[in-house]
Amino acid sequence: VTHLPLGPGAEFDQIRAIAKRLGTGAQGLGDDAAVITMGDTNLVVSIDCSVEGVHFRTDWMTFEEIGWRAAAAALSDLAAEGAAVIGALVSVGRREEGGVDSDPVSEIMAGVGAVVASVGGKILGGDLVKSDTYIVDVCVLGTARRPVTRAGGKPGDGIWVTGRFGAPRIVLEGLMRGETPDPRLRGFFATPEPQIQAGIWLAAQGAHAMIDVSDGLAADLGHLAAASGVAIAIEAEKVPLVTGTDHLGALASGEEYELAVALPPAFTPDGAGVQLTRIGEVKSGSGVEVTLGGKRVAVPKGFDHFAT
Amino acid sequence: VTHLPLGPGAEFDQIRAIAKRLGTGAQGLGDDAAVITMGDTNLVVSIDCSVEGVHFRTDWMTFEEIGWRAAAAALSDLAAEGAAVIGALVSVGRREEGGVDSDPVSEIMAGVGAVVASVGGKILGGDLVKSDTYIVDVCVLGTARRPVTRAGGKPGDGIWVTGRFGAPRIVLEGLMRGETPDPRLRGFFATPEPQIQAGIWLAAQGAHAMIDVSDGLAADLGHLAAASGVAIAIEAEKVPLVTGTDHLGALASGEEYELAVALPPAFTPDGAGVQLTRIGEVKSGSGVEVTLGGKRVAVPKGFDHFAT
Repeated sequence: VTHLPLGPGAEFDQIRAIAKRLGTGAQGLGDDAAVITMGDTNLVVSIDCSVEGVHFRTDWMTFEEIGWRAAAAALSDLAAEGAAVIGALVSVGRREEGGVDSDPVSEIMAGVGAVVASVGGKILGGDLVKSDTYIVDVCVLGTARRPVTRAGGKPGDGIWVTGRFGAPRIVLEGLMRGETPDPRLRGFFATPEPQIQAGIWLAAQGAHAMIDVSDGLAADLGHLAAASGVAIAIEAEKVPLVTGTDHLGALASGEEYELAVALPPAFTPDGAGVQLTRIGEVKSGSGVEVTLGGKRVAVPKGFDHFAT
Repeated sequence: VTHLPLGPGAEFDQIRAIAKRLGTGAQGLGDDAAVITMGDTNLVVSIDCSVEGVHFRTDWMTFEEIGWRAAAAALSDLAAEGAAVIGALVSVGRREEGGVDSDPVSEIMAGVGAVVASVGGKILGGDLVKSDTYIVDVCVLGTARRPVTRAGGKPGDGIWVTGRFGAPRIVLEGLMRGETPDPRLRGFFATPEPQIQAGIWLAAQGAHAMIDVSDGLAADLGHLAAASGVAIAIEAEKVPLVTGTDHLGALASGEEYELAVALPPAFTPDGAGVQLTRIGEVKSGSGVEVTLGGKRVAVPKGFDHFAT
């Protein structure tokens, strides 16, 4: 049984305990998605569960946004493998609430359906259950001829990222203080765009290793470094920012759903159709090193859910 | 967009509302599992969510049994399509509890892993989340060259079932009264066997339509009749029973995870390797008609979860 090396932390201790318990009954745990060879292509699958009070609050977003965001998180795992999307299966746990004029489950599913359709997929099935809290669990299916894992980063590779960083953390911190989010930032939090097209393009360019940014850029590059058996050096001032955010905060901002990629030295971003920025490089060694203006700085801690 | 016709009921009203909202963004909702053509075979996928207090209680079963039962429910949907199993992705919601000696999540996953392995599959991935209640959501993947849907039953077909009926209802009713279940019946409730091998064999024999018994035999044959556009006549006294159960109760016993199948008149069960019993036949018309000793009786109501 081959599992990718996992970094430190209680969540990863739990996964290690499960992998040990399952033995040969588990296959390839530890990457963004599982890969199963089928004929001349590979099936790529992942599951991501969002729970009210842990991943979202119903007074922060509409039900449609809750559905979009939950599905975007799962689709982002397919993007990180360079996979095209087939579709999604969705379990929704619903509270029993009054109000005949609202139909939260249909709203949630409309949001899930919208983001799945935006990347060319379909809703393939689902389950509706009663629950004390709203739950949206999304299992996504895709295909990739050459899936890109977290392993495979090589010394000398450039570290590149899609998009711009920092907005979800600022929006979340504001919501937790009871503030109304800046409308220019709010969409990065409520309706993130999974980088499916960018992932497919980067895989075709020969990406060595790829991960989506869910725990925070520094933390996720730590996972990529561990899986690849390499060190990664990041120049924080090169991290592209959304206006109003700062470089070190952006490195710790979670649920960005942008991609971080190790690409060969000769790579050029021409023709990507998406913003790509080189923020550092792969070296021999282990761990993540961050500099700001040439001076070594502490690696900002990754995002953990607000209900920790 | 082709969806199978659904029967009456609040759950199906909700699914119809979602299907309408999603329009062409959904594909083939309403069968036990979704089918996606891939090369020269079909991918068959389903998702099934079990929630503490709705589908199970932690004082009724061990965590390993909770995991087994939740995964068996999902695998049973693959059995109903005649699919072979690739594996499962599992989201687990866990309560934060004291006690360093127990690891409920690993126990749940061991149960899931055991039943998935028993039908030749692997654990392919998962997600662990904090929650107010335990949740086990299982997405299963399989393949079938000729998937069997609920539609396709024809007048003249025999209605056959695998296994024996009635135990889960009796165990559940006893547990709700605070009784210790009869150990000869308990396993039918706590660790049901998904009928994967039987489903594959029945598909190969030319099954016209198939469903797994989750809502109750009479209710599920109602779904099959609606999807096939036919009527079904059941002779209740022919339903094979677990010792200590009764025919009408058995027709209303849910979460049996046996298969009910419409097979051509010439079908014989020789060589099935599993108990197969003919309990009725397909006629033209609509709905389900139940007789006991030749006299028409009311169709027992299907099982709804105990927390209704």
